[in-house]
Amino acid sequence: MADDDILEIAGRAFRSRILVGTAGYPSRQVMLDAIDASGAEIVTVSLRRVSLTGDTDDMVELLAGRHILPNTAGCSTRRDAMLTAELGREALGTDWVKLELIGDRETLYPDAGELIVTAAEMVREGFTVLPYATDDPVVCRRLADVGCAAVMPLGSPIGSGLGILNPFNIEQIVRRSPVPVILDAGIGTASDAAFAMELGCSAVLLNSAIAKAHDPVRMARAMGLATAAGRAAALAGRIPRRNYAEASSPQLGLIGS
Amino acid sequence: MADDDILEIAGRAFRSRILVGTAGYPSRQVMLDAIDASGAEIVTVSLRRVSLTGDTDDMVELLAGRHILPNTAGCSTRRDAMLTAELGREALGTDWVKLELIGDRETLYPDAGELIVTAAEMVREGFTVLPYATDDPVVCRRLADVGCAAVMPLGSPIGSGLGILNPFNIEQIVRRSPVPVILDAGIGTASDAAFAMELGCSAVLLNSAIAKAHDPVRMARAMGLATAAGRAAALAGRIPRRNYAEASSPQLGLIGS
Amino acid sequence: MADDDILEIAGRAFRSRILVGTAGYPSRQVMLDAIDASGAEIVTVSLRRVSLTGDTDDMVELLAGRHILPNTAGCSTRRDAMLTAELGREALGTDWVKLELIGDRETLYPDAGELIVTAAEMVREGFTVLPYATDDPVVCRRLADVGCAAVMPLGSPIGSGLGILNPFNIEQIVRRSPVPVILDAGIGTASDAAFAMELGCSAVLLNSAIAKAHDPVRMARAMGLATAAGRAAALAGRIPRRNYAEASSPQLGLIGS
Amino acid sequence: MADDDILEIAGRAFRSRILVGTAGYPSRQVMLDAIDASGAEIVTVSLRRVSLTGDTDDMVELLAGRHILPNTAGCSTRRDAMLTAELGREALGTDWVKLELIGDRETLYPDAGELIVTAAEMVREGFTVLPYATDDPVVCRRLADVGCAAVMPLGSPIGSGLGILNPFNIEQIVRRSPVPVILDAGIGTASDAAFAMELGCSAVLLNSAIAKAHDPVRMARAMGLATAAGRAAALAGRIPRRNYAEASSPQLGLIGS
Repeated sequence: MADDDILEIAGRAFRSRILVGTAGYPSRQVMLDAIDASGAEIVTVSLRRVSLTGDTDDMVELLAGRHILPNTAGCSTRRDAMLTAELGREALGTDWVKLELIGDRETLYPDAGELIVTAAEMVREGFTVLPYATDDPVVCRRLADVGCAAVMPLGSPIGSGLGILNPFNIEQIVRRSPVPVILDAGIGTASDAAFAMELGCSAVLLNSAIAKAHDPVRMARAMGLATAAGRAAALAGRIPRRNYAEASSPQLGLIGS
Repeated sequence: MADDDILEIAGRAFRSRILVGTAGYPSRQVMLDAIDASGAEIVTVSLRRVSLTGDTDDMVELLAGRHILPNTAGCSTRRDAMLTAELGREALGTDWVKLELIGDRETLYPDAGELIVTAAEMVREGFTVLPYATDDPVVCRRLADVGCAAVMPLGSPIGSGLGILNPFNIEQIVRRSPVPVILDAGIGTASDAAFAMELGCSAVLLNSAIAKAHDPVRMARAMGLATAAGRAAALAGRIPRRNYAEASSPQLGLIGS
Repeated sequence: MADDDILEIAGRAFRSRILVGTAGYPSRQVMLDAIDASGAEIVTVSLRRVSLTGDTDDMVELLAGRHILPNTAGCSTRRDAMLTAELGREALGTDWVKLELIGDRETLYPDAGELIVTAAEMVREGFTVLPYATDDPVVCRRLADVGCAAVMPLGSPIGSGLGILNPFNIEQIVRRSPVPVILDAGIGTASDAAFAMELGCSAVLLNSAIAKAHDPVRMARAMGLATAAGRAAALAGRIPRRNYAEASSPQLGLIGS
Repeated sequence: MADDDILEIAGRAFRSRILVGTAGYPSRQVMLDAIDASGAEIVTVSLRRVSLTGDTDDMVELLAGRHILPNTAGCSTRRDAMLTAELGREALGTDWVKLELIGDRETLYPDAGELIVTAAEMVREGFTVLPYATDDPVVCRRLADVGCAAVMPLGSPIGSGLGILNPFNIEQIVRRSPVPVILDAGIGTASDAAFAMELGCSAVLLNSAIAKAHDPVRMARAMGLATAAGRAAALAGRIPRRNYAEASSPQLGLIGS
């Protein structure tokens, strides 16, 4: 089964369906061990942090062998996001970018209107764009229509650990998306990751739930297993929900009667 | 981690935390493949079916190498359950019994009052008793007090696939249980199994969710992974839930500003 | 509508479907105003408090015109509950008793097994018994079978304000109950009371949610309205839940097209 | 309490906090009776239906004494919505408009990006705009910023009866909204309306849940009561949720001990 279940994004093939962030770990060694334990092939890196602190080379070296997905974390205007993406392209030598365009400092929710316009501009500039979006089926469809390589709806606020607040919307997004849907933000524990995959997502993206867990490496392993479990369950075809019991063991032929 | 994380029931040690049933599979071969894919060491067998159909030897042979846990599925009186357990002890040569004492034919919920009395009697008769119970913390505590080796509260009705209807109660049961808590009944998909473990259960027991899935072997693998994922997440210590966002990537030092 | 929608318990007819407690109010005047605002006809009183503090006459006088339902709050053994009920019968001159038999000091959940036996004994002793029970359909059915005048399953722990943790079970209890089902314990706010009625309960019983609210009288009024709203909604027959939209306004004949 | 609890929208004061639609009733008489039973002062009317079928005078006469809120139901482009609103202004003599700009024919979810632009244009054209929006806190804030008189986030798809899928988002919208928040779409039964008010909404808007109920007039009455109940509960200040029990009645001084 595992062999032929490939995640394809923008023409590239991946075996793992978990993407992890690189921020907030107790140490770089724990980060590297956690990435390994999760099985992630794609890792996100904050362009802002990398390019401004001048530790680009160091980070790239550390993450050698992984597919680096730079993000525009912290950007709240189109101009800021474009500049950040372009600096990142030069620094990291990749056209891929996770577009974050924050519309609210408290929830860190994206600005849906500006996001679509900015994504379209980035696509025109030759970027492979993976936008962090609200869980709005119309917004996610528009993002695919303007040429995004995947859409990344949120489960709940970044770092909140509240899981998937609106599974209905995620299912709607999956049903009408012509590109992979990657659940991004809000995952708190393993069952959240499994649930995202069962809703039909192609992958999940995590950072805080691993980095800030009491034992990040063990949690990373849990998340990797859960993502694989959820994917397998989605492919296996679950039993329907019933509002009554259905005996698994035979109930007839009572001995005592 | 895996090496020293042992589940101990009645003095016996197990590495796997998933128990599976043997009823309702499309074929015996699929059943065996699914058991293997799940990683289960303990398998439940209906005493009624085994002892009445005379295929005991065949079944025991088929399941060689697994720990067989006979159940009293379909019993609704103390006398019936006692007789079934005793016939099973003779037929299968084990003192272990999963006690099912059904109080309602539609929900297949246990009869809490009779269950405690019957469990106590079985313990006195030398059985190692694992009772299928409602998710009532007081009933589960009483069952442990009369000597049960584990308690097996339901998540939702047998075969319903509704998952865990009352996570609060499962947490309460876990908190006050001196014996292992095994979530039994109601699991529909992988995330349900992971969630049970995250609530603190020591193991999960499944049948229909695997046997009746479209692809039982793949679902069995999903359930095994999910159980391991949930266990690892519980041990890893999840992040707290917050009603606001917390940036994973740094938000300061905006390039464009 | 209101005129012919009568709640009948043990042969007595009531127009109101909200029952309220009398404990924990900031003052007796607030208690009386809140009872009035709620519209309750039946009020519960702790037998223990009344009979031990010698203020029985005072309390009875205060509550004149309401139907007093004494309870056995704080009892955890059959003997204790029987004694309390008998003292109450003498002190208050009523056969009615709300039977509480606590099995766990932390959750204050009932002891299901002892509860059924005690209820049966109280019925034999001539009491009109309304037992506080877990949300277990089998236990609630047994309580009706031994002659209880109503059953009072919990929504969640007393005073927790967690609402109805397991709506599925409440619906199952309602479906098979030959006597009125009164949701007791756990209600935190008005929508919880409405929801209980929509699930098919005949009435709700509240105390802390009113007494401990910031403004008890206003909350009492909210609870009275919500209970009436939920009852009316249950009788009116709600629309089915659909996993897709259905336009309320016509979508055809677009002007601009 | 009731006397001074006024809902103010665009400088107009209302006593009722329930708005109802006029589509889909079994008959005009049932519609009128239901509106009366709900207590609504504001009723929505489809501009498309009114202006195209030429029954404007009839409808206006029927609804005499209510505040009519025309909507742009069925519009999916800015031009279509603008034209519809202008035709309605002429036909009905009101500047108020409920702006619907549908982005997806299946979910009938709004098109967030176009919605903000269209709302801004309508405001410039002198309309008092109440937009039907997704439950996105950033989108709702932008709508207020461009001059909308209220924002109307959805609970779930129109006509679905799924209630409020994401209470977290509704609370976030309420917290940061400088204008009244009116929950629109998805309400299925009375407890949903109460819950919306408890989350802090200023009002609710309903159509199908009343019009398509088995008994629309009784359901309208239920909805009116539930809205008032939820509002009173929000003002009364509910008890906190606790993960443990707190006795309402005294537990000390056990008689039998």
